[in-house]
Amino acid sequence: MPATCNAWVLKRRPEGRLTRDDFDWQTTTLPDPADGQVLVRTLYLSLDPTNRIWASDMDQYMPPVQLGEVMRGGTLGVVEASAHPDYQPGDLVQGMWGWASHTLAAGGAGLNRIPHTEGVPLDAYMSVLGATGMTAYFGLLDIGRPEAGETVVVSAAAGAVGQIVCQIARIKGCRVVGTAGSDAKCRHLVDDLGFDAAINYKTADLDRELAAACPKGIDVYFENTGGPVTDAVLKLVNQNARIPLCGLIAHYNEGDNSEGVRGPNNYQMILMRRVLLKGFIIIDYFPRFPEGIAELGGWLAEGRIKYDTDVVEGLENAPEAVNRLFDGANTGKLLVKCSEK
Amino acid sequence: MPATCNAWVLKRRPEGRLTRDDFDWQTTTLPDPADGQVLVRTLYLSLDPTNRIWASDMDQYMPPVQLGEVMRGGTLGVVEASAHPDYQPGDLVQGMWGWASHTLAAGGAGLNRIPHTEGVPLDAYMSVLGATGMTAYFGLLDIGRPEAGETVVVSAAAGAVGQIVCQIARIKGCRVVGTAGSDAKCRHLVDDLGFDAAINYKTADLDRELAAACPKGIDVYFENTGGPVTDAVLKLVNQNARIPLCGLIAHYNEGDNSEGVRGPNNYQMILMRRVLLKGFIIIDYFPRFPEGIAELGGWLAEGRIKYDTDVVEGLENAPEAVNRLFDGANTGKLLVKCSEK
Repeated sequence: MPATCNAWVLKRRPEGRLTRDDFDWQTTTLPDPADGQVLVRTLYLSLDPTNRIWASDMDQYMPPVQLGEVMRGGTLGVVEASAHPDYQPGDLVQGMWGWASHTLAAGGAGLNRIPHTEGVPLDAYMSVLGATGMTAYFGLLDIGRPEAGETVVVSAAAGAVGQIVCQIARIKGCRVVGTAGSDAKCRHLVDDLGFDAAINYKTADLDRELAAACPKGIDVYFENTGGPVTDAVLKLVNQNARIPLCGLIAHYNEGDNSEGVRGPNNYQMILMRRVLLKGFIIIDYFPRFPEGIAELGGWLAEGRIKYDTDVVEGLENAPEAVNRLFDGANTGKLLVKCSEK
Repeated sequence: MPATCNAWVLKRRPEGRLTRDDFDWQTTTLPDPADGQVLVRTLYLSLDPTNRIWASDMDQYMPPVQLGEVMRGGTLGVVEASAHPDYQPGDLVQGMWGWASHTLAAGGAGLNRIPHTEGVPLDAYMSVLGATGMTAYFGLLDIGRPEAGETVVVSAAAGAVGQIVCQIARIKGCRVVGTAGSDAKCRHLVDDLGFDAAINYKTADLDRELAAACPKGIDVYFENTGGPVTDAVLKLVNQNARIPLCGLIAHYNEGDNSEGVRGPNNYQMILMRRVLLKGFIIIDYFPRFPEGIAELGGWLAEGRIKYDTDVVEGLENAPEAVNRLFDGANTGKLLVKCSEK
């Protein structure tokens, strides 16, 4: 039975924020799966800061999304029809088929069957047990290497990755300080997630409040944003501090100019304090995901890790929803719910 | 017999370049050495970019030189009188007694006797076999970790550290590209020191010439300068490139403002290409100096490493001479010859 597929196709390169006018809403009819193919209906679409990078044609870590292509995105779906021996209707699968209600996907490496554990909500596979959780886990532990008693600062701490980073750092015995964009988020981080301190970067005297929150200086800075938080952090880094560079969301809407993103102020502190700064992209850690999923899954089952999701209903709302990441509106993992299982 | 000591004492914090007016020339009479002390006459004083940092009161890796103190500097000298059992008149010693013709130094850890090898010129101990050579050796090999066939770019390549970095990278089988501040320096680097290419950063179209010199991209960037060279390098870094951050000489005369030194343009490439950037200060490698001296000394004896010195005669000229590092006038290790052995 042919399926009707709705999808957002990239129409033009964005200037500044992503807008609905950067996309076309296309409706097509998908044929039955050919041999080796699987028809999948999308349950959840992941919206991430890197969407803004993919939509641009800046020099980046994957090919940019081409004009006329379905917008790229991480997805969770359910198999509706299968012409591949390894997939059955009803199977839960993850992939990158993007901003589309359905897809005809080739079975195999790019379409991962999820063994759904009883009691684990579906959105966990799109957050703490997905690329988000893996980003937090490997960025913090493989690059940041926090030791008990050290101070860890996390920017965009109320975001999907930041929340998990902070909770892992707490489990490792660190003092954890986050920055976020509203007083409500800061209260949530301290009261509900157990951070030692949280600072509203939009209203704080950053130098003063960060110094007060980090009386022993900063040993690890998990960098999600760039911008004034980073400028202030660098004044306080301890000798041999580590900076996992996960994102620069403060700059993604301005990174298309010829000079790219400018580095932080107080850059000389990287030299003076012998700081290690390492950029990373989570796809490089793909072979180690089982290790991260096992440990995070254990902490989740023990109640030692919590996670928030920010779920927008309806694929048709994706272009507006993605900007919740850039204007500070969202807390936790931003997802679009496309259909019910 | 009391010795007359001439010394440059820091009088005020510099603004912009170091000038003679930032120092007082003081003449004092040193008494005979007390028990455990050694009277040393200075042969060579090392001038280094970090002198500008030490003279400022910016947040740095050692205490700033205090106003009224003798200006700090690495030194080589000869023992004139000794009241310490481990030192004899005529011994060659290294230390940090600074911009002074003589010193009364405590014998022990801060005053290293140099076993003078026949045929090794004295200035080698102040360059390729001293902190300069060690900076090149450990920065490149411990942080940069170049592999045969990779491309290594070095800024301030005609400088004391840069020259040695490039030659070690050649020994390791790398393609080596340097930047320097004049066409004459660039010819010297290619014709006399065997670099694959050298670019005059003052006159070149940096993006174009660097791309042409690095057809396979850049795997290691030994960072001595910051500034436009770094902006251009970041556009060309390969995945998992390494950047040993040794110095930021382009910024030392401007780093005293409240925002410090601003980071490079194209900073997002550190993320996109998963670059490792690590600041280092050579004093941290002090316990491993014997390892570096042994290997560099071997290459020197085999004629596989050359080094240039730029020797200014007379301690009285030190305040002007140090600016040769910042205006691109010098090639190789800048030394002040204070007296004859």
